[in-house]
Amino acid sequence: MDYAKEALRLHAKWNGKLETVPKMKIENRDDLSIAYTPGVAAPCLEIEKDKKNSYVYTGRAHTVAVISDGSAVLGLGNIGPEAGMPVMEGKCVLFKALGNVDAVPLCLNTQDTDELVQIISSLEPSFGGINLEDIAAPRCFEVEKRLQEKMNIPVFHDDQHGTAIVVCAALVNALKLAEKQNPTIVINGAGSAGVAIATLILKIGLGNVILVDKQGILTADMDLTSGQRGLIDKLNKEGKTGSLKDALVGADVFIGVSAGHIVSKEMIASMNEKAIVFPMANPVPEIEPEDAKEAGAYIVGTGRSDHPNQINNVLAFPGIFKGALKAGATCINDAMKEAAVYAISSMITEDMLDSEHIIVSALDPRVADVVAQAVADAAKESGVVRE
Amino acid sequence: MDYAKEALRLHAKWNGKLETVPKMKIENRDDLSIAYTPGVAAPCLEIEKDKKNSYVYTGRAHTVAVISDGSAVLGLGNIGPEAGMPVMEGKCVLFKALGNVDAVPLCLNTQDTDELVQIISSLEPSFGGINLEDIAAPRCFEVEKRLQEKMNIPVFHDDQHGTAIVVCAALVNALKLAEKQNPTIVINGAGSAGVAIATLILKIGLGNVILVDKQGILTADMDLTSGQRGLIDKLNKEGKTGSLKDALVGADVFIGVSAGHIVSKEMIASMNEKAIVFPMANPVPEIEPEDAKEAGAYIVGTGRSDHPNQINNVLAFPGIFKGALKAGATCINDAMKEAAVYAISSMITEDMLDSEHIIVSALDPRVADVVAQAVADAAKESGVVRE
Repeated sequence: MDYAKEALRLHAKWNGKLETVPKMKIENRDDLSIAYTPGVAAPCLEIEKDKKNSYVYTGRAHTVAVISDGSAVLGLGNIGPEAGMPVMEGKCVLFKALGNVDAVPLCLNTQDTDELVQIISSLEPSFGGINLEDIAAPRCFEVEKRLQEKMNIPVFHDDQHGTAIVVCAALVNALKLAEKQNPTIVINGAGSAGVAIATLILKIGLGNVILVDKQGILTADMDLTSGQRGLIDKLNKEGKTGSLKDALVGADVFIGVSAGHIVSKEMIASMNEKAIVFPMANPVPEIEPEDAKEAGAYIVGTGRSDHPNQINNVLAFPGIFKGALKAGATCINDAMKEAAVYAISSMITEDMLDSEHIIVSALDPRVADVVAQAVADAAKESGVVRE
Repeated sequence: MDYAKEALRLHAKWNGKLETVPKMKIENRDDLSIAYTPGVAAPCLEIEKDKKNSYVYTGRAHTVAVISDGSAVLGLGNIGPEAGMPVMEGKCVLFKALGNVDAVPLCLNTQDTDELVQIISSLEPSFGGINLEDIAAPRCFEVEKRLQEKMNIPVFHDDQHGTAIVVCAALVNALKLAEKQNPTIVINGAGSAGVAIATLILKIGLGNVILVDKQGILTADMDLTSGQRGLIDKLNKEGKTGSLKDALVGADVFIGVSAGHIVSKEMIASMNEKAIVFPMANPVPEIEPEDAKEAGAYIVGTGRSDHPNQINNVLAFPGIFKGALKAGATCINDAMKEAAVYAISSMITEDMLDSEHIIVSALDPRVADVVAQAVADAAKESGVVRE
């Protein structure tokens, strides 16, 4: 199927992928007097007495905003807020279809950090959570951090943390299958996704990480971003230097969040035996899966749905927000992210696990509820829920 | 029915009155690849080429935001943004149920004019129109004016203009029935609604207006708001002075947007014959309809659904936005408001017109389309549509 052509045709037909649909009919005077004036004054006054009642009488308890500034949309770059809307609408469709979470797409026509923080934080009374999406680095780090400090609802930049969670879930199962302990993990691409993946791997303790970008293996003497700088002392325990090629010699795992066709078969062949290779650049991976296999890779996973082992954020965000909202969480902390990782990986039981089945199907309808339960439990156990 | 009790029970059961519902199923890889990546890139790129394509490929063409700062909610006052949400959700329900316009409720946690302008204007890429709601005067005037200057989509403060439109529609028919030409119209309450009603009456040329508030009949030597100041030279052609009581002597029409039970039977009796009385304070009118009738009023209309002649904004906003969106209007100008007035009044044909039927039922399902067509035509004729 020509997805681009079909997407254009159907997007024009749909004219927007979402509807806002009332839960009740408005057919007579009583309907109007209950859903609107004068009856509506009663829930308003209950919320005025105690703001927490907004989770009872309005849709906050199951509604998130999906917010972008249009600065880093898919692999398309800074195409602007109007052009980013089809992606945000699509994300909202997935929130509802997979997690039964209501979601409102909002694209903002500013790319100023202070303005983004002010605008997004002002929306707090209307929503139970904020999913940040497709905001360029390094702005995304500061926007997320400041919003998390300022707001009492979960704020989650999916491009960072959603990606990190599904990569770690796939990695947990791949390491189990390959029987690797304390592996050396090379991540190529040290932007928002690469840094988040490295951070979560280290938090969970899945292995040693070498972070690589265009300037080669990151070392403390380089010009680093604040995200990279915060991690640098925990990376590269073997003290390697040089290029991606040098990093991969003897490595156990390759994770690519960079660009298409930059890894050769020779580089894969230089890795340790039972190499795990996740070339996730989209739509063109760092190395074609069949080339990686030919060069000796044991397990290959990509971001694409036309290869086995699709590592797709869709496995994470609907369940994570569903669980956070269910628990009344005020944030999404590391314990909740780790719970999501093991919930997703648990969907592949030992008898199912093989080199072409290290991660559950992106559209498996059971995933969101399993993730939601684990995330809600972790939120309660770690004490980050509303009183 | 005890509306307050029933509203509390049902609002808790509904847990929010709206759902965001996808227009398509997400059940297989093709669904995902068309509604989301990789297919979604194609409409994104078409919008990047020309922003106007956002009206084709996203929901903007039929979606408005209903936005409040929670500062003047119903008759409840400054109850804050969380407590204002049930009203905004209710308004969105009415937009969809009556006009098939999708609407998103947003309550903002700031009451600063500059911040409101900045936040609301930043939402432009996501919506086709902005319905401002329940924002206190005089802030509402400046917020609306600055947004209209800054944004290229319609911005409409319903408490002002929606109210003015339905009052004028009722007045057109009442004046016809009473066979009054060039009437003297006393408006009590000179806040946002009163000033908007006076402005529209004068624009359309329905009669002479005397505007009254707590300090009495407004005159140029008083301390006036900017909205009152802009009108003062066009008001009170007879040069009356004094109190509301003085204003009503010999007047043809009373319009109340003030407070309950402040008009006496004697004051109504002092009016001209075939007096038209619209005591619209809610829930308690300026004078009870039966008292007004006893005192000699010919036609009485209120904001309440339990009396004849309910003058309700619900008759205006769904059709006005539907028409503005349909035409691709960049604003809602005076020609469009006037078209809405006559479209609503036209729903009562001459054979139906009597003193208990001067305005069509608030839930008549034909109204929104009739209003929409008139508003769309007026937008095109007055040249305020996107190219």
